[in-house]
Amino acid sequence: MKTWIHIPKQSDFSIYNIPFGIFSSKKRKPRVGIAIGNQVLDVFAAYKLGIFKKIKIKKRVLKNNFLNDFIALGKEKTTKIREIIQQELCNENSILKENNAVFLPQNEVQMHLPIVIGDYTDFYSSMEHATNVGMMFRDPENALLPNWKHLPVGYHGRTSSIIISGKPIHRPKGQVLPPNEKHPIFKASNRVDFELEMGFIIGKSTTIGNHITTHKAEEYIFGKVLFNDWSARDIQKWEYVPLGPFLGKSFASSISPWVVTLEALEPFKVKGPIQEPEVLPYLTYEGFKNYDINLEVSIQPKNKDATVVSHSNFKYMYWNMVQQLAHHTINGCNIKVGDLMASGTISGKSTTSYGSMLELSWGGKKPLKLADGEERTFIEDYDTITMKGYCIKNDIRVGFGEVSAQILPTL
Amino acid sequence: MKTWIHIPKQSDFSIYNIPFGIFSSKKRKPRVGIAIGNQVLDVFAAYKLGIFKKIKIKKRVLKNNFLNDFIALGKEKTTKIREIIQQELCNENSILKENNAVFLPQNEVQMHLPIVIGDYTDFYSSMEHATNVGMMFRDPENALLPNWKHLPVGYHGRTSSIIISGKPIHRPKGQVLPPNEKHPIFKASNRVDFELEMGFIIGKSTTIGNHITTHKAEEYIFGKVLFNDWSARDIQKWEYVPLGPFLGKSFASSISPWVVTLEALEPFKVKGPIQEPEVLPYLTYEGFKNYDINLEVSIQPKNKDATVVSHSNFKYMYWNMVQQLAHHTINGCNIKVGDLMASGTISGKSTTSYGSMLELSWGGKKPLKLADGEERTFIEDYDTITMKGYCIKNDIRVGFGEVSAQILPTL
Repeated sequence: MKTWIHIPKQSDFSIYNIPFGIFSSKKRKPRVGIAIGNQVLDVFAAYKLGIFKKIKIKKRVLKNNFLNDFIALGKEKTTKIREIIQQELCNENSILKENNAVFLPQNEVQMHLPIVIGDYTDFYSSMEHATNVGMMFRDPENALLPNWKHLPVGYHGRTSSIIISGKPIHRPKGQVLPPNEKHPIFKASNRVDFELEMGFIIGKSTTIGNHITTHKAEEYIFGKVLFNDWSARDIQKWEYVPLGPFLGKSFASSISPWVVTLEALEPFKVKGPIQEPEVLPYLTYEGFKNYDINLEVSIQPKNKDATVVSHSNFKYMYWNMVQQLAHHTINGCNIKVGDLMASGTISGKSTTSYGSMLELSWGGKKPLKLADGEERTFIEDYDTITMKGYCIKNDIRVGFGEVSAQILPTL
Repeated sequence: MKTWIHIPKQSDFSIYNIPFGIFSSKKRKPRVGIAIGNQVLDVFAAYKLGIFKKIKIKKRVLKNNFLNDFIALGKEKTTKIREIIQQELCNENSILKENNAVFLPQNEVQMHLPIVIGDYTDFYSSMEHATNVGMMFRDPENALLPNWKHLPVGYHGRTSSIIISGKPIHRPKGQVLPPNEKHPIFKASNRVDFELEMGFIIGKSTTIGNHITTHKAEEYIFGKVLFNDWSARDIQKWEYVPLGPFLGKSFASSISPWVVTLEALEPFKVKGPIQEPEVLPYLTYEGFKNYDINLEVSIQPKNKDATVVSHSNFKYMYWNMVQQLAHHTINGCNIKVGDLMASGTISGKSTTSYGSMLELSWGGKKPLKLADGEERTFIEDYDTITMKGYCIKNDIRVGFGEVSAQILPTL
């Protein structure tokens, strides 16, 4: 595809991407936009120019604080809208080309949480991550629990504290059990950690009692985001038995502003790992359902350079999204447009591909050296953590931008 | 208080109660109502008669599918509204008395899910329940885990599958590990269970980073409901390590339609249990924060009589609501109007006060005899489970009505 708009070669937001988000500017209230190169295309303004006239869309769907109503139009319509935008950006005679006001520089807009998230589920689908955590928290000889290879383990997370990239987070306080003590103390966490994850956003609702097959699951996925599932390891360790993580996670999670559609990611599908033992029939699937998405995490201390501390890839996932969705609904649990399902920490085999400081510093025992000579076991005050993700194949690049947040001192 | 409306002596919905809900009828779209005796007062119709003219309320707050906007008016206003209704129902010259159309018989209206629930948290705050489960699932000698007496253990639950009382539920399917096997099988659960719980609904939002003290917590609680946290014990047992319950719970939870305000429950406060070891300062509280609420559960097989199988009481809770809220927010996690926080199963000391079949039948080993000669270990197809709850003191009764649902065969 050849576009008339200038797109830098290394841009995540190529003509092949067209991700959706919610932005506002000094003069524009929140509305749907797409990212293209270094620009944002104001989709509501483009709508007013008549480029979507073949599709029935109500104004309030595009002039909206969230993408939910847009997503609820259904894939048939949203795919068509994305294609029209692509065509217009390639059409030298497009009305968009004559109307500069439909474009704004990305550094002049404010991005917002793109979705009203109904329920948020966090899976635990990287075998390397689950093994590493099992070795450290439980038994190194039996790091993976007996159920892990039979089902995509998951749990419900807190929705209210999911925030948009860029918002800083105060170090949480809570109960921590000091080593060799029987009684907990109350303190600020000193094991604040990131978790490198990706999330997918539900694009189609089901009703209670019904389930989704792996064959149909992609119809229910609108798109994907980068996700940092912040964790306070000391709080988590004391509280998590027997009902799972709670306050060690619920102080905040950060998501990236641009939702990359499943259609944009289609060319980057790859074969998943062999699953042994064989999974139950409702978890079997056909075709390629993993995605080759390069991921990286950097730590930037205040007023210093950033150091990339992890290079990972979404293709490492043992359980893929269609299996996660088939499992989640097999008991009749309904899903809704705007629900978020996250992957769990994405770690690879090599020690430089681990997706959390817990793993990278092996429980705090092996400090990481940063570019400026500082060392880190966990995250310190004023550190900024930035995660990036992109696919590349035959010179075509489709990326996610970034999810970034700074840790501030406890309140 | 003396009212001109007829209220049967045993009614949960006395003049001292005035609980809020959302109802519709053949001729009326969903709107706010209150229960009084066997009637529903149409609060929107009463508003149109001008009884709330001293309070600024927008029409759409009362003509609404949910109570969220009503609750978001704030306690000052909603308390005032409740008091005005009480006064009008006692005032012999009230305009309501001349307008029969503002009342409808409860058996002629349809009740709806009262709240758009943002996040749902389930606590685990009955010591007797946690001990019983620990004895059966883990180690009888160390049934309570080390953290249990230091913090109100809780986890996030699924919001989308919370349904209104009366809606039947299909038996869920899922992975189950047969005894002495290493590989799970896929089947319909044969250990479907109820959990007798109460929930409270958040009445005031906080922002991320802030926390609520036990001293202020009641300001953030709008009211309470009965809650049946349906569980599939066989699915739960296999899946729940290490991240907690997931599909064993998320197929459905049932809530009662009438939200009883904290103000209506004020006279029924009682002293809570002594907490040993002493809790950390942020969990200490002053005054009485437990509530004497009688609870019961009955099982009714198809075309047979119901048998009450459990008599419990909300006063047994080890951790109270103000402690739960202080703990939930101590890490800076924000809460929103319409969030639901449930107690966890409410069991007492005696074997007839246990709040689940898991405990009542001691893991299926001791079948319960029902009135008609049938026996139950867990819930069978076409059984209807009904939970009731009420307070009584000096002849004043304030009750919750019921939460009821039938289990249907698997789909």
